Amino acid sequence: MLIYMFSYSSDAIERAWQILEKIPGRATGAYSHSQGVKGLRDEIAAGIAARDGFHASGDNIFLTDGASPAVHMMMQLLIRSEKDGILCPLPQYPLYSASIALHGGSFVPYFLDEEIGWGLEVDELKKQVDEARSKGITVRALVVINPGNPTGQVLAEENQKKIVEFCKNEGLVLLADEVYQENIYVEDKQFHSFKKIARSMGYTDDDLPLVSFQSVSKGYYGECGKRGGYMEVTGFNADVREQIYKVASVNLCSNISGQILSSLIMNPPKVGDESYESFMVERDGIISSLARRAKALEEAFNSLEGITCNKAEGAMYLFPRLHLPQKAIGAAQAAGAAPDAYYALRLLQATGIVVVPGSGFGQAPGTYHFRCTILPQEDKIPAIISRFKEFHEKFMDEFRDVSRDEAPTGTTIESGGD
Amino acid sequence: MLIYMFSYSSDAIERAWQILEKIPGRATGAYSHSQGVKGLRDEIAAGIAARDGFHASGDNIFLTDGASPAVHMMMQLLIRSEKDGILCPLPQYPLYSASIALHGGSFVPYFLDEEIGWGLEVDELKKQVDEARSKGITVRALVVINPGNPTGQVLAEENQKKIVEFCKNEGLVLLADEVYQENIYVEDKQFHSFKKIARSMGYTDDDLPLVSFQSVSKGYYGECGKRGGYMEVTGFNADVREQIYKVASVNLCSNISGQILSSLIMNPPKVGDESYESFMVERDGIISSLARRAKALEEAFNSLEGITCNKAEGAMYLFPRLHLPQKAIGAAQAAGAAPDAYYALRLLQATGIVVVPGSGFGQAPGTYHFRCTILPQEDKIPAIISRFKEFHEKFMDEFRDVSRDEAPTGTTIESGGD
Repeated sequence: MLIYMFSYSSDAIERAWQILEKIPGRATGAYSHSQGVKGLRDEIAAGIAARDGFHASGDNIFLTDGASPAVHMMMQLLIRSEKDGILCPLPQYPLYSASIALHGGSFVPYFLDEEIGWGLEVDELKKQVDEARSKGITVRALVVINPGNPTGQVLAEENQKKIVEFCKNEGLVLLADEVYQENIYVEDKQFHSFKKIARSMGYTDDDLPLVSFQSVSKGYYGECGKRGGYMEVTGFNADVREQIYKVASVNLCSNISGQILSSLIMNPPKVGDESYESFMVERDGIISSLARRAKALEEAFNSLEGITCNKAEGAMYLFPRLHLPQKAIGAAQAAGAAPDAYYALRLLQATGIVVVPGSGFGQAPGTYHFRCTILPQEDKIPAIISRFKEFHEKFMDEFRDVSRDEAPTGTTIESGGD
Repeated sequence: MLIYMFSYSSDAIERAWQILEKIPGRATGAYSHSQGVKGLRDEIAAGIAARDGFHASGDNIFLTDGASPAVHMMMQLLIRSEKDGILCPLPQYPLYSASIALHGGSFVPYFLDEEIGWGLEVDELKKQVDEARSKGITVRALVVINPGNPTGQVLAEENQKKIVEFCKNEGLVLLADEVYQENIYVEDKQFHSFKKIARSMGYTDDDLPLVSFQSVSKGYYGECGKRGGYMEVTGFNADVREQIYKVASVNLCSNISGQILSSLIMNPPKVGDESYESFMVERDGIISSLARRAKALEEAFNSLEGITCNKAEGAMYLFPRLHLPQKAIGAAQAAGAAPDAYYALRLLQATGIVVVPGSGFGQAPGTYHFRCTILPQEDKIPAIISRFKEFHEKFMDEFRDVSRDEAPTGTTIESGGD
C-alpha cells in the first residue's frame, strides 16, 4: 500500500464539492440525462450569459463528447437527402465536408476572401445560395467558423451582423463553430458569439435558429483527450427540439468528465478565489505565447520569396499562400500529387516539419496553401523557422521559373522532383 | 491550500505508470490515434486472447465512447439505402432499430423464441432473410445480443456455432453485441465470444466478417458515465478496414479515460497482485448478488397469476410476459396506450416502480411484456417485490376476466382504468 499526498487550492476543493452536488448520486460513473447533467448545463448557461450579457438557459445546452459529435447531430437532423445543402466556408476544417458526405447531403461552398484577411462577404454567400437553388438544392444552414480554422481570421462585429441578417432573410439555420473563442491574438479584434450579435440586433429566440458549438479541446486549456464540448441550441420550435433530444438520447450521454470540464471552461476561477491569480498568470501566459508564436511564424513566412501570409488573428493556425513556380507545379503533377501536397511532403522529408496541404481544406482554384499550427513550444519556434527557411529557399532555387525576359514563349512545363 | 492523502495498492500504482508509458506525451489531455492509444489496444487484444484462447491484435481494436457509437459506425458503413437490411432480434435493445432508422436502412426482425428461454433459432433467421430478400432487400448483417438485452438469455455454444455457420453461408457480417459478457448467473452457461466460436470451428480472418462490441458500462464495473468501449473488427479486407478507420477518424478519437478503463476491464488484477484478493471479493460479490436478485425477482414474477418469466441467465434484465386479461387490454385501448405501457404506467403510479413496456423492445404480436432490471440494491429487493405483488394482485382483481363458465358470449370489452 502506497500513500500519496496532493495539495489543492481551497476554491478547487469547493468547486469539486459543488460539482458532485450537481450530479445525481454524487459520482461520475453513471449515465446522465442525455443532454448532460442539468446542474452542469446551468453552470454553462451562466457562463454564456456572463460572456454575452444576454440570457442563456441550461435547457438549451446539449453536452457532447467534443464538438464533432454535436456537428454530426445537427447534420443528421438537417440533411434529408442530397437535395439538402449546407453552406460551408472554403477553406474549411474538413469535419464539415466529411459530415455532410456521411449524411448524404450537398456541400455548398462559399469562398473566404484571402485579399481581405479571409473575410466573409455576404455577396459571396448570396451568390452561392442562388447558384445552389438554381440546381434544385434546398440550402438549409450556414456554417461559420469564427475564429477561423484553418484561416485564423476573427470576424468583425459588423460582418457578423450582416451574416445574421442574411440567415434571417434566407431562412437558414446558423451553425456557429465558436470553439476558438478564447484564442484571440490581436488588439483590435474581440470574440463575439453569434447569439450575442443576434440578441444585440433585437432578434429573439423566435427569429433565428442558431447553434453555437464549443469544445474543451481548444482555448488556453486544449484538453482534447477529454472529449468535452457542448452546443447551445436556440430558435427552434418545440417539435424540432424534441427531435434534437431524441438524436442525443440514442447515444445515452456524453462522458461525465468531459461534461465537468465543459462547465469549468465556461466558469474559470473568479477574483477572490485562491487560485485566481495563478490561473490568470497561466492563462495569459499561454494566450500571449500563442500570439507571439503566431506573429513570429507570420513574419517568417512573409519574409520569404513566394509566400504571403495573412495574420493569425485567432484560432491556432496560419494558412500561408504558396505562390509556386510553374516548374514546381509541373514536378508535383509528374509525381501525381497536388502542388501543395507535393510541397508539404518535400518539407516533411527535408526537415521533419509537418504542415497540412491547403488542398485538404479546399481553396480558390489555382491557389496553393498550407496550414501550419502555432502550437510548437515557443522556444522551438526559431529553430523551426530556420529549418523551414532553409528548405524553402532551396525549394525555390530548385524550381524557380526562368524570368520572363529569358523565357522563350511556349516553354514546356518540365517534370522534375523526386 | 488543502492537503489530501490517498492510499493505493502497489499494483494500481504500477499499472498507472504502465498506462502513462503507453500514452504519447504521458498525459490524458491530448487526442490519440483515431482507433485509440496503440498500447491500450494491445492490452485489450491481450485480454481478448487470454479470454478466448485465440490470437487477437491491437490493430483490430477501435476504441469508442461506449459501445453505442461503435454500433452507429458499423451501421453507417453497412447501410447504403433503404434496400439494405440488418437482421435484429425481437425483442431488442432499441439502439439497433434507432441506428438503422437514422442511417436509412431496413430493420429486418427475427423473433427470439420465448418458449425455449428466448432461444435464437436458425430456421427463424433463414425464414426472415428469405422473406426480406423476396422484397428486394439486401440483408447485410446479423445482430446478435449475447447475453440478451432485454431478454437475459445466454446462447449455448452449439447455437452459436449454427449462427456462425449461417452468417458464413449467407454472406452476412456478424455484429456481436457482447457487452454483458461478464454478467452470467447460471452454472450451466458460460460466455463464449463469437470470435472464439468461429476460430474453434476453424474459420480464420478470411472466412467471416465479425465485429464484437464491448463496453465499460456493464459487467461488474458498470462505469456508464465514463463512456468507454471498443469494437474488435475481424474478417474485413484492407479496403473496408480503411473505410472503418476513415469513419472513426471523423470524430478524432474517443475519450482517453474511457480508453484506459476499457484496457482495465479486459485486464483485471491478476493472482499475485496486491489488489487481487480484494478485487475478486468485490467482483464475485457483485456478480453473485446480481444472480440472487435475478433469482428472487424471477421467482416472484412466476409466483403471480398472469405472469410467466424466463430465467435471467445473464445480462441485467428479466423480461416477464404479462398474460393480461381482455378487460385490461380494453382499458389500455380506451386510454390510447399499448397494453404493457398501460400496465407499466399503472405500476409506476401505484408504487413508484419503473419498468419498461415490452412494446419498446418489440415482441411477438399479441404478447405483452416488460423489462425489469436486476439493479436495485439487494436489500431493497424484498420490499420492491412486496410492493409489486400488491399492485399486481389488485390490478388482476380489477381487470380479471369473467371466467368462461360465467361469461356470456359477445361480452363487450369494457373501458376502465383511471
